[in-house]
Amino acid sequence: MRIAVMGTGPVGQALAGKLAELSHEVTVGTRDPEETLARTEPDYMGNPPFKAWLEAHPGVGLGRPAMAAADGELIVNATNGAGSIAMLEAAGEENLAGKVLVDVANPLDYSQGMPPSLFVSNTDSLGEQIQRAFPEAKVVKALNTMNCEVMVDPAKVPGEHDVFLCGEDTDAKREVAELLRRFGWPDGRIRDLGGISSARGLEMYVAFWLRLWGTLGTGYFNIAVVQAPPSS
Amino acid sequence: MRIAVMGTGPVGQALAGKLAELSHEVTVGTRDPEETLARTEPDYMGNPPFKAWLEAHPGVGLGRPAMAAADGELIVNATNGAGSIAMLEAAGEENLAGKVLVDVANPLDYSQGMPPSLFVSNTDSLGEQIQRAFPEAKVVKALNTMNCEVMVDPAKVPGEHDVFLCGEDTDAKREVAELLRRFGWPDGRIRDLGGISSARGLEMYVAFWLRLWGTLGTGYFNIAVVQAPPSS
Repeated sequence: MRIAVMGTGPVGQALAGKLAELSHEVTVGTRDPEETLARTEPDYMGNPPFKAWLEAHPGVGLGRPAMAAADGELIVNATNGAGSIAMLEAAGEENLAGKVLVDVANPLDYSQGMPPSLFVSNTDSLGEQIQRAFPEAKVVKALNTMNCEVMVDPAKVPGEHDVFLCGEDTDAKREVAELLRRFGWPDGRIRDLGGISSARGLEMYVAFWLRLWGTLGTGYFNIAVVQAPPSS
Repeated sequence: MRIAVMGTGPVGQALAGKLAELSHEVTVGTRDPEETLARTEPDYMGNPPFKAWLEAHPGVGLGRPAMAAADGELIVNATNGAGSIAMLEAAGEENLAGKVLVDVANPLDYSQGMPPSLFVSNTDSLGEQIQRAFPEAKVVKALNTMNCEVMVDPAKVPGEHDVFLCGEDTDAKREVAELLRRFGWPDGRIRDLGGISSARGLEMYVAFWLRLWGTLGTGYFNIAVVQAPPSS
């Protein structure tokens, strides 16, 4: 499948790399490819510049948002939450219409200090904002509840643990669940929380996750839902 | 120890019952004990009236908030989140000063429909509001992330799973952790998330928990944090 991954940061790289490894034709979308490739400094997190990553992944393409999205059969939003809507507008509503749009972004607001707060929460969510802005896209919120290395390789954390998704379109969720299985997520650990308004829960969870991260001192963790058997 | 449990609902009953079972002297605080005992109808959840519960727990006392709090060496806030501050004001700041105040309440707002939203979140929390309103109390947010039956009997959910707490006072957290161990929580599953501002994470988690509950169709669940070994 041809997949457009919007975003050149660590999350975009992790997802684009894994999808390419799974033999998908991946194009990473970025506002200004020349500028992206011209960076020679590590990013603010100390990661090597995008060009080095791209050279290590020769099968992955790079293009402007509209080009990447027009070509993609499925779109992944791995941009910074604060820039997601603008980036998807640059991709073009017509290039998203009718397609599955996997929204991995979190609405993080760093303006109030660390850990970040959320710029939308409680009675709305970024997932819903994106679905409203692009009503013909089939938005599936997924994977936003963990470190990007764990997203694409659940074995980075031992044992079984869970990944969550939600969205309005059942077929779209089924397609995303199939991708998650290919990433290594066991069937019973892929949990559908319902319609896109459940993105509120998935994004607000991140406020908890950030503090757990701070306490554990590592991003290599996740949660497993533990449930009593139905008979009890 | 003498413990005051504020709140006569299912959470207050579960905690008061368990604490009495553990040989603590428990008094449940309620605004109007006569009115509470005069109720003969099941509550809005279909639970029997408080009087029936109290008769089944002859060791537990019932009293006005200030009486219960004055007598208690440790206070548990198991009231409705929307009424917590007013209830604790009725208990009297002087009766909370210097004491451990375990805040189990969630700031649920049912005015926007189901599932409820939160009336405070993101850049503040109910736990912090309570700590600010009663600066001399040692507020420990704990147990708000699960069904009340699971709070006091983790074995209601099989296997190991986690309980979280946070607060400013280390000794107060140690005391609450000891109570949690007596409830049956294993040592390594009692996770301290830091200062009281982490109540934001614990309360926002509830937005996720509510949707998970909706999906699972049972309150008998919890989460286990799964972590890679430190060496990896």
